[in-house]
Amino acid sequence: MKKILFHTTDYEYLAQQVLSSNKLEAGEVEVRKFSDGERYQRILTEVEDRNIILLGGTINDEATLEIYDLASTIVSLGANSLRLVVPYFGYSTMERRVKNGEVVAAKTRARLLSNIPNSYKGNRIFLFDLHTEGIPHYFESNIRAVHIYCKSIVHDAAREYGGDNFVMASTDAGRAKWVESLANDLGVNAAFVLKRRLEEDQTEISAVNADVRGKTVIIYDDMIRSGGSIVNAAKVYHEAGAEKIYVITTHGLFINNGFERLKNCGLIEKVITSDTHPNVMKIEDDFLEVRSVSNLINEIAMH
Amino acid sequence: MKKILFHTTDYEYLAQQVLSSNKLEAGEVEVRKFSDGERYQRILTEVEDRNIILLGGTINDEATLEIYDLASTIVSLGANSLRLVVPYFGYSTMERRVKNGEVVAAKTRARLLSNIPNSYKGNRIFLFDLHTEGIPHYFESNIRAVHIYCKSIVHDAAREYGGDNFVMASTDAGRAKWVESLANDLGVNAAFVLKRRLEEDQTEISAVNADVRGKTVIIYDDMIRSGGSIVNAAKVYHEAGAEKIYVITTHGLFINNGFERLKNCGLIEKVITSDTHPNVMKIEDDFLEVRSVSNLINEIAMH
Amino acid sequence: MKKILFHTTDYEYLAQQVLSSNKLEAGEVEVRKFSDGERYQRILTEVEDRNIILLGGTINDEATLEIYDLASTIVSLGANSLRLVVPYFGYSTMERRVKNGEVVAAKTRARLLSNIPNSYKGNRIFLFDLHTEGIPHYFESNIRAVHIYCKSIVHDAAREYGGDNFVMASTDAGRAKWVESLANDLGVNAAFVLKRRLEEDQTEISAVNADVRGKTVIIYDDMIRSGGSIVNAAKVYHEAGAEKIYVITTHGLFINNGFERLKNCGLIEKVITSDTHPNVMKIEDDFLEVRSVSNLINEIAMH
Amino acid sequence: MKKILFHTTDYEYLAQQVLSSNKLEAGEVEVRKFSDGERYQRILTEVEDRNIILLGGTINDEATLEIYDLASTIVSLGANSLRLVVPYFGYSTMERRVKNGEVVAAKTRARLLSNIPNSYKGNRIFLFDLHTEGIPHYFESNIRAVHIYCKSIVHDAAREYGGDNFVMASTDAGRAKWVESLANDLGVNAAFVLKRRLEEDQTEISAVNADVRGKTVIIYDDMIRSGGSIVNAAKVYHEAGAEKIYVITTHGLFINNGFERLKNCGLIEKVITSDTHPNVMKIEDDFLEVRSVSNLINEIAMH
Amino acid sequence: MKKILFHTTDYEYLAQQVLSSNKLEAGEVEVRKFSDGERYQRILTEVEDRNIILLGGTINDEATLEIYDLASTIVSLGANSLRLVVPYFGYSTMERRVKNGEVVAAKTRARLLSNIPNSYKGNRIFLFDLHTEGIPHYFESNIRAVHIYCKSIVHDAAREYGGDNFVMASTDAGRAKWVESLANDLGVNAAFVLKRRLEEDQTEISAVNADVRGKTVIIYDDMIRSGGSIVNAAKVYHEAGAEKIYVITTHGLFINNGFERLKNCGLIEKVITSDTHPNVMKIEDDFLEVRSVSNLINEIAMH
Amino acid sequence: MKKILFHTTDYEYLAQQVLSSNKLEAGEVEVRKFSDGERYQRILTEVEDRNIILLGGTINDEATLEIYDLASTIVSLGANSLRLVVPYFGYSTMERRVKNGEVVAAKTRARLLSNIPNSYKGNRIFLFDLHTEGIPHYFESNIRAVHIYCKSIVHDAAREYGGDNFVMASTDAGRAKWVESLANDLGVNAAFVLKRRLEEDQTEISAVNADVRGKTVIIYDDMIRSGGSIVNAAKVYHEAGAEKIYVITTHGLFINNGFERLKNCGLIEKVITSDTHPNVMKIEDDFLEVRSVSNLINEIAMH
Repeated sequence: MKKILFHTTDYEYLAQQVLSSNKLEAGEVEVRKFSDGERYQRILTEVEDRNIILLGGTINDEATLEIYDLASTIVSLGANSLRLVVPYFGYSTMERRVKNGEVVAAKTRARLLSNIPNSYKGNRIFLFDLHTEGIPHYFESNIRAVHIYCKSIVHDAAREYGGDNFVMASTDAGRAKWVESLANDLGVNAAFVLKRRLEEDQTEISAVNADVRGKTVIIYDDMIRSGGSIVNAAKVYHEAGAEKIYVITTHGLFINNGFERLKNCGLIEKVITSDTHPNVMKIEDDFLEVRSVSNLINEIAMH
Repeated sequence: MKKILFHTTDYEYLAQQVLSSNKLEAGEVEVRKFSDGERYQRILTEVEDRNIILLGGTINDEATLEIYDLASTIVSLGANSLRLVVPYFGYSTMERRVKNGEVVAAKTRARLLSNIPNSYKGNRIFLFDLHTEGIPHYFESNIRAVHIYCKSIVHDAAREYGGDNFVMASTDAGRAKWVESLANDLGVNAAFVLKRRLEEDQTEISAVNADVRGKTVIIYDDMIRSGGSIVNAAKVYHEAGAEKIYVITTHGLFINNGFERLKNCGLIEKVITSDTHPNVMKIEDDFLEVRSVSNLINEIAMH
Repeated sequence: MKKILFHTTDYEYLAQQVLSSNKLEAGEVEVRKFSDGERYQRILTEVEDRNIILLGGTINDEATLEIYDLASTIVSLGANSLRLVVPYFGYSTMERRVKNGEVVAAKTRARLLSNIPNSYKGNRIFLFDLHTEGIPHYFESNIRAVHIYCKSIVHDAAREYGGDNFVMASTDAGRAKWVESLANDLGVNAAFVLKRRLEEDQTEISAVNADVRGKTVIIYDDMIRSGGSIVNAAKVYHEAGAEKIYVITTHGLFINNGFERLKNCGLIEKVITSDTHPNVMKIEDDFLEVRSVSNLINEIAMH
Repeated sequence: MKKILFHTTDYEYLAQQVLSSNKLEAGEVEVRKFSDGERYQRILTEVEDRNIILLGGTINDEATLEIYDLASTIVSLGANSLRLVVPYFGYSTMERRVKNGEVVAAKTRARLLSNIPNSYKGNRIFLFDLHTEGIPHYFESNIRAVHIYCKSIVHDAAREYGGDNFVMASTDAGRAKWVESLANDLGVNAAFVLKRRLEEDQTEISAVNADVRGKTVIIYDDMIRSGGSIVNAAKVYHEAGAEKIYVITTHGLFINNGFERLKNCGLIEKVITSDTHPNVMKIEDDFLEVRSVSNLINEIAMH
Repeated sequence: MKKILFHTTDYEYLAQQVLSSNKLEAGEVEVRKFSDGERYQRILTEVEDRNIILLGGTINDEATLEIYDLASTIVSLGANSLRLVVPYFGYSTMERRVKNGEVVAAKTRARLLSNIPNSYKGNRIFLFDLHTEGIPHYFESNIRAVHIYCKSIVHDAAREYGGDNFVMASTDAGRAKWVESLANDLGVNAAFVLKRRLEEDQTEISAVNADVRGKTVIIYDDMIRSGGSIVNAAKVYHEAGAEKIYVITTHGLFINNGFERLKNCGLIEKVITSDTHPNVMKIEDDFLEVRSVSNLINEIAMH
Repeated sequence: MKKILFHTTDYEYLAQQVLSSNKLEAGEVEVRKFSDGERYQRILTEVEDRNIILLGGTINDEATLEIYDLASTIVSLGANSLRLVVPYFGYSTMERRVKNGEVVAAKTRARLLSNIPNSYKGNRIFLFDLHTEGIPHYFESNIRAVHIYCKSIVHDAAREYGGDNFVMASTDAGRAKWVESLANDLGVNAAFVLKRRLEEDQTEISAVNADVRGKTVIIYDDMIRSGGSIVNAAKVYHEAGAEKIYVITTHGLFINNGFERLKNCGLIEKVITSDTHPNVMKIEDDFLEVRSVSNLINEIAMH
């Protein structure tokens, strides 16, 4: 018997994509809002003893509790197994306490999802290209967290636009290791944007560690929010002589006119993103190319 | 040393009211929103080994997770004890499964709050005039739930407007027991709105079980949302000869022009509500009288 | 392979009934009492990797711990799944704290049964026509509680004795909603016994909200203990002109000569009860008709 | 502030004894039985933030659940700490599985008491002269089990009746180590009753390992139920030449005329027991001397 | 599909023995030590949804944590079921607190292994010929502990060397019950070494309770460490006239020249041991006969 | 009353240092090894209701279980609070799964320490200069993990040897952020060793991003094991023209002649380390300067 795929309201587009390969049964949920804003949810598909996939990113508090409520109910109705597929895990950048007293929301939310009652065969959660490697271990023992790398999507796009001899570039030192690893996999050089302090306390930024002159530069960042650091990096690489600049990201949020900022800076040929966040579906523009993670989700589901 | 009172964003008004009696120390939280909608929270007051009150209703998903994140962090910073004061507990009307597959959100949310890590002396949660009596037992053993009755507020208001000889009335059979208990406490008669089926499948509604002719009728309902059932009940009591009709509620949500509906129906003298829900603070009108639960909260805190 | 049905000592009669449909294998337990009153129990049927049904009501403390001990042992011997079928859940009327300091035994016992160790596929508990709707949510996350409604038994009996046009009646306001729902399902009128306070503090009881004159009245109550409130209700309906009165109940305890009281009041034609409580098996009298829940149990087992 | 001592119904006698030393405050509980046998319990003394002792042996299933319900409620009302004082722990002889499928009730009951919710400072349980040493470790981490040895009572009684040169004797090999330890503490010889198999499969029992001729023999057993094995041992020691035989026990159950059996066998001078089990209070006879554990309980409480 | 057998580093020899019967698939683990002594472990065989046996005794702290780390990882990789087979359970002699403040390592280690996260079908642990019967109940509810008796191995060896009419003997009173049970099973007499105190405080040891004159005596002890008590017992039985003495043990540790001590005392014909402890594999000498528990392990695995 | 400081065997040196400030009471533990290698531990100081600090790094498996056993026992004896002070947390470099099937020991060990039973006021663990920031959140909710930064020690040493105008340097890109933060705090430039790939697949390493010519370079790494990467980095900075090179580390393990390697490379003036790892106490040499974390521990204890 096929596994059943449920999804939250915001992830309808991705669920359709996944279901189109015909490997999963579509689960039906009745959802409506009461006048006081409370959500009525009813699971219409029989889930008893079935294997369930629940697809939805924790893109905001409502989406987070939609997952929590649905998952808790699916378990209480007797599901055999439950796999949460969370393409975008919110609050992943708030993953440690920098100042005393700060809420480490990556931890509180990991605990929250760990506390969903156990299905018969236990619960798992699949997280995509996390901002920090440690996050799967923030989850507590009730749930099994798996980090899914979207490298195949990034590799394909990079090769397609960069050919054989491009430079894989990062926006700042924080992603240095990840980009270095991507570069090694692709057999190309990696470039980092570095900050050098001048004598009189000025900060000069420059991409010094790799020769980008006359080359295609592909900047990768795990997520693009307002696009500011991407634009800054593009400037640096442009000044350093890069011929063409492409941008690849996993999570395209494009908030606060982030997409326009990237498009209008005039330095970037194209932005390639996956569809882990529903915001990418709101943009229709040739400057943006969306590549779906639906195949990865089908693999998770089939395994 | 005084206990510290923290509050969620929406409950600033009630926290100020509680603090005005000068029995608690005000806890400070830095809160701001990132461009992607994520909330940055930082607890600025030292909470280690202190006794903490966290005030906030679960009026929507954001407020619910604001409580969850703050409470989890307060505990992780070493609070000695934690009391959640939740004047309004959302989803309390979704407290049992009527149709197969429904989300029983009163249970999933009770579990969610039960899963806040334990402070040294354990966590308690105080809930006000719950829609259903069983809800405190929906919480799991990690937390101790206490049902706070706002009877004193209702009694005082009823006596003030009803004098010695009024009729305590309910909107439907569901609150019959509660209103009967209020009426007995106040030494007055109780009236219920009943549905009687006529021969040809028509439903006639009438307040038959108590003589309201020429009397003041005080309708109590635990919460007013759009006000529809209050207006219906007022019509019935009016037709049954009630002279004056007052309405008392604990939780005034007044959504979808609910306040206007009550005011404009022309049958009600005044609506008296407590301030458990922030919506009541948005209305300034003599037709609405707000009585604060701040004294009850100070009692909870001082105990 | 068939599921195995075990039962507690008191529920032998119901287990036999369930087994007679030949869908389950009978599980054997050796039970004897030591001279000091302690119970020796040994599970003789191999339960490793089998799906187990354990049938028994928590009709008293001994029965409750017999279930607890057997269930804990069945799990420790490696059962694949465990379903507790509890036709009668004791202490369901002690479901909330009315006076400060009271033991809420419905909660303490729900926790007790939630604490049985988990079988491989988790434990479930099936409870029948509970006195209060919230009780399934008193159980904690280790166990999955399911409320089984015996409506089919009640419907059939009501239709059989009431025909098409009878009145479905309750004993007091507490069961108003339930009886209203039964009445709606059956397409008949519902009647409630109401208390009206007279001028000089006298209480007058009367069935006013539905015309019962010349009609068959079928009183339903979820449980009959000493039968007092049933007899009182019967008097009221009789005085209101009811032609014939039948009584239906799910849980027939008939303690303190409760059965005799009902039979001898002279107002009731017949009492129909299910066999969820072993007390009904001690009575042999045409005035009592027992309808078995064994089919419902077979359905639970087969699902 | 003094700690509060509550007790179960059966342990009123011991609570009075403990309270007579005036170190604890008496906690009041309202208990009554409903007609259906269910127990109504209400804790009348305010327990919030107080340190509580709950005294009661698990002498049968009712007593066990009386403890469970009271303790759960005391915690839910906010007790600061909870110490269960369980003078007699039932089912301690069912502490391992001898035949496949047996209920190991010592474990299931230890789990049950471990599952009482935690008071602020955690729960502890004090168990007296357990039949098996491992039992404190059967409890799970929620509760801290402490084994209280009543050696002082046994020592004093043994010295008083045995003088300086008696023989400390056991009834069978199972208690050999315990009696050997007592004997070493008292500086006397230990005697064991041994079973020797003869050629033709006959079993001859004899006390051979210590010379009891002309000496006072003091038989110790942790509990006396029907008294059979004590009488058998007394016969053996008598035949081996013992001059006088005394019997000391911690737990005197004396079921099935056990007391008469001991008294009437004519071989025993006196039986000395502690008052850990309420059965000893039902006997008034010079042949039985009862020594109270109330001082030990006061020590536990004061610590 | 076959179950997969993993093993710790020290138990390679026993895993090979078990695998030779070809009923299990060999699981591969890459293990190496870093320069700082930390262990790198990688599970090379795919365990997702497979049934896993992990073989290894807790013979020291390293071995204990090797099990803990491997088992935790096997579960985190999605094993369907996990059975820990622990032929030798270290610290089983530290199973109760004799002096205040002592670490009861049998309990702390039982808790440690109970805390391995649950595989889908739960975890079980199989322990062999435990020093104390209560230990399986020291484990907490997360894991199911099973006590495996190696009686078949002991019986066969005893019968082979003792024939039909030997004496089954223990080293001290502590093992009396176990040896008595073995003797009864084999239909022979049991002998115990007893300590008798003489008049002037001297301790005389002698085997008095069974006639060993001219007979073959087979001493059984659950474990042999330095062999001291075995040699002492052998002397006693020799002096009491035993003709031939054999020694059988389950757990042969033979530390501190224990093997040489036994061999060189000149009183023992042969020592027969199982292979539950890897130390036995280091000895190659006709005086020692090793009988493998591998068949028992295959039975556990196949069940 | 003072808090009590216990320590593991290996951390005697650091406990003495901490105790010398006279703010804590020394806790006594009796430890000895049995011939079979098992550890006998007995806590001699009364811990009931006391606040306990347990000091010890998880430098190997034995040390880890010494902490686990001691801590579990301290709690079982009734400690009021427990703080584990773990100066060196082993396995912190195995903090994520790089290849499928790898044991993430940083997580398994964090779980292990989270599973110590709770003292009355809960348990906390203090970890020093962790290799990865996320590790405190690997611990589960039973314990509260606190990351202690030894920045004050590093700052003081850097300023002392570097004066006002030195370069703060890292060994590789992995520590870039940390060193950058240190440099910013000290108002100096940061230098990173970068890997640049040449045309024909050769890797050239060079410190390019900061001008070190003629300057003092201070290399910081969180831990020094064999010293290899430090020596490599020193070479690069030397070749880049650094005048003097100092090395600072928090955790000095100096395994495999690591200390000799650093001393004999001829490029380094001095190595400054804290005393979080006992290995540093084995070296007496002017080339190594040890600065104690004992003040930090006293602060943790006093807080």
